[in-house]
Amino acid sequence: MLDPAVRIDEARFWRTVERSGTIGPGRPGGLARVALSDADKQMRDAFVAWCREAGCAVMIDRVGNIFARRAGTDDRLAPVVIGSHLDTQVNGGRYDGVVGVLAGLEVIRTLNDRGVRTQRPIELASWTNEEGARFAPPMIASGAFAGVYDVDWVLARKDDDGKVLGDELARIGYAGEAPVGGRPVDAYFELHIEQGPILDEQAVDVGIVTQGYAVRGYIVEVRGETAHTGPWPMDKRRNALVGAAHLAVAVNDIGWKYHATYGKATVSRLLAWPNKPGILSDWAQVTVDVRHEDPETADHMAKDLLDAIPVCARRGNVTMKVVDQWMFGDERFDPECVGLIRAAAARLGVPTLDIASQAGHDAYHLAKVAPMAMIFTPCAEGITHNNNERAELAYTAPGVNVLLHAVVARASR
Amino acid sequence: MLDPAVRIDEARFWRTVERSGTIGPGRPGGLARVALSDADKQMRDAFVAWCREAGCAVMIDRVGNIFARRAGTDDRLAPVVIGSHLDTQVNGGRYDGVVGVLAGLEVIRTLNDRGVRTQRPIELASWTNEEGARFAPPMIASGAFAGVYDVDWVLARKDDDGKVLGDELARIGYAGEAPVGGRPVDAYFELHIEQGPILDEQAVDVGIVTQGYAVRGYIVEVRGETAHTGPWPMDKRRNALVGAAHLAVAVNDIGWKYHATYGKATVSRLLAWPNKPGILSDWAQVTVDVRHEDPETADHMAKDLLDAIPVCARRGNVTMKVVDQWMFGDERFDPECVGLIRAAAARLGVPTLDIASQAGHDAYHLAKVAPMAMIFTPCAEGITHNNNERAELAYTAPGVNVLLHAVVARASR
Repeated sequence: MLDPAVRIDEARFWRTVERSGTIGPGRPGGLARVALSDADKQMRDAFVAWCREAGCAVMIDRVGNIFARRAGTDDRLAPVVIGSHLDTQVNGGRYDGVVGVLAGLEVIRTLNDRGVRTQRPIELASWTNEEGARFAPPMIASGAFAGVYDVDWVLARKDDDGKVLGDELARIGYAGEAPVGGRPVDAYFELHIEQGPILDEQAVDVGIVTQGYAVRGYIVEVRGETAHTGPWPMDKRRNALVGAAHLAVAVNDIGWKYHATYGKATVSRLLAWPNKPGILSDWAQVTVDVRHEDPETADHMAKDLLDAIPVCARRGNVTMKVVDQWMFGDERFDPECVGLIRAAAARLGVPTLDIASQAGHDAYHLAKVAPMAMIFTPCAEGITHNNNERAELAYTAPGVNVLLHAVVARASR
Repeated sequence: MLDPAVRIDEARFWRTVERSGTIGPGRPGGLARVALSDADKQMRDAFVAWCREAGCAVMIDRVGNIFARRAGTDDRLAPVVIGSHLDTQVNGGRYDGVVGVLAGLEVIRTLNDRGVRTQRPIELASWTNEEGARFAPPMIASGAFAGVYDVDWVLARKDDDGKVLGDELARIGYAGEAPVGGRPVDAYFELHIEQGPILDEQAVDVGIVTQGYAVRGYIVEVRGETAHTGPWPMDKRRNALVGAAHLAVAVNDIGWKYHATYGKATVSRLLAWPNKPGILSDWAQVTVDVRHEDPETADHMAKDLLDAIPVCARRGNVTMKVVDQWMFGDERFDPECVGLIRAAAARLGVPTLDIASQAGHDAYHLAKVAPMAMIFTPCAEGITHNNNERAELAYTAPGVNVLLHAVVARASR
């Protein structure tokens, strides 16, 4: 057990966070540090240098995940892993993801300062392409680590410009040689900004995540027929864009239907072809998801969505088909790891709030291969995936201290 | 007056049409000969060679319009111009546009065969980028000829990849030196496939166009706010894609409202940003138009559309603004030129049908600087802007013969 008086070096932690916020600038105040871009490489290089300075051994796996390892007194034991991501959305903030990674780095630096050795090694993980802003699906590389995705399949993913994930990894120098996953992990901890307004509204600095929102996502393909926008009669039209628009509206309506219990439904992406003036589109693709704290309700929402598809197809006189689907958020948060977080917070006298995670996180995949728990820290007004995302040291540091004490407790068994 | 027994060389005409149908292949049976592509260059080169073989002087203007001139006996007189376009949509057919250009070429070849001289010169025009499939707006270069668009503005238009119209013209060798427009045109004739089902259904080979469908088009910009697709509550969301989808549905509904009187309303293009998984879009753009044979009804449809904009903006919790608009189809078809077509058909014993043009045509712009008339020929089932577009010599040739006799009548005054 770590001396309850030990705290992180807040100034150092925040300096490092602020330094990361200068890498990959986007809109004013925000970042556009999308996965495997030059900015991502620059961030990774800085991160690796900081880890080496902190005495860690750095290992890169085949999908570009970075692991910085601080040896344990019994180094044959499975490590306790702390992780999150360094990439951002195209209009991303300066805290989403990176705060969790740098919180892990600060944990290691603090242990170094105090000369604290843990029985188990501690590994700090930075997962590739968490956001999915460039390569679909999101959380792709933690998924590969957990055996959810095949490594070669991951390496072959293409972005919207046809660039290949594996090629881009090699281009920025992060196509590592270490095998992806397949090794024991004792426990996984992730700290992340909440990305919602609850902690900020309730003025509680530490959220103990007890469950995820159950998410059911779909890519729906729409098929119609090209024709002239002028003479072609309304009753013969098979405009894929119209079918897609009907579906987008229907999905949004499902979100409202479940709004009273904090359900959400989203259309995040709509593509069409030719999507040009003068011609009706014969192809469209819509990316949608529904999510709810209660998995059964999420299933009801998903049923509403699937029921809406044939209705929208009829209204648009097109055909529609689900071509891809996914679910996450049903993963189990390990009671023992959650208990370690709760106990650490109690020891430090930090008020906490039990909270559900509404976003997807790499932690969900890790839950498949290790006991997992998460800590949320506040973000102002819940604004995220936006250049106005904001977090402050004063209400972030308590979560990092809780992470420190929980991780050491786990790594000392 | 041309000897009423004179007819075009049908076999030669169709051979030339079929040859053009091999240039710029797209989907099976169709073309993807978009403006200023390599395929467009190849088509232009073939066309210019054919015009020179037919003894014409060829002139290219600054926006790439091609004019092939057959001298008149009094060459100082303003020419009678026959024109249409060689470019296609990305999923285009083999007849839309090119049939009208090659009909004009066959008129000249037939006059050559017979040694017929006309008093006025006859000019055959191929207008750049009629479709607007690559550069917006459509009919851009005939518009420049008619003084509707500024030449430098036209040359600066960009395609979706950021390539500039003027650069692409130079790249394919069609950045000519002749001034754009500004010279007298005695009359303008355009033959075009109907692009609708009426002539085919009624089994009439020649449509005499007496008016256009009044078209009112808009580009509507949608502004929202990026946010996370997960935690962000439904009542705070400002997803530009949702606003755009509401508008697309509303516009399509307007088409159905006026369907009984053959009104049409179209959403042809929907863009969004970031348009990625995991994030709400803060920008979208929707291209829409309404059209009706009766201009007053078209105005009612336009009012319905403009009234729908604030409603859709409220439903999507976004702001919307019309950032561009246009109208066409109200142009006057010249009674005298229409009369020449009607008289020629009567002389040749060809049954005709008076018909309205529902598509946009270069002829509309030409109406601003010259008396104008159009001939429609059938296309099977009205299918167009589609690789299954089909026309046959048997029902196309009568229209070309009518064009021949009408043009010679006009050019002999």
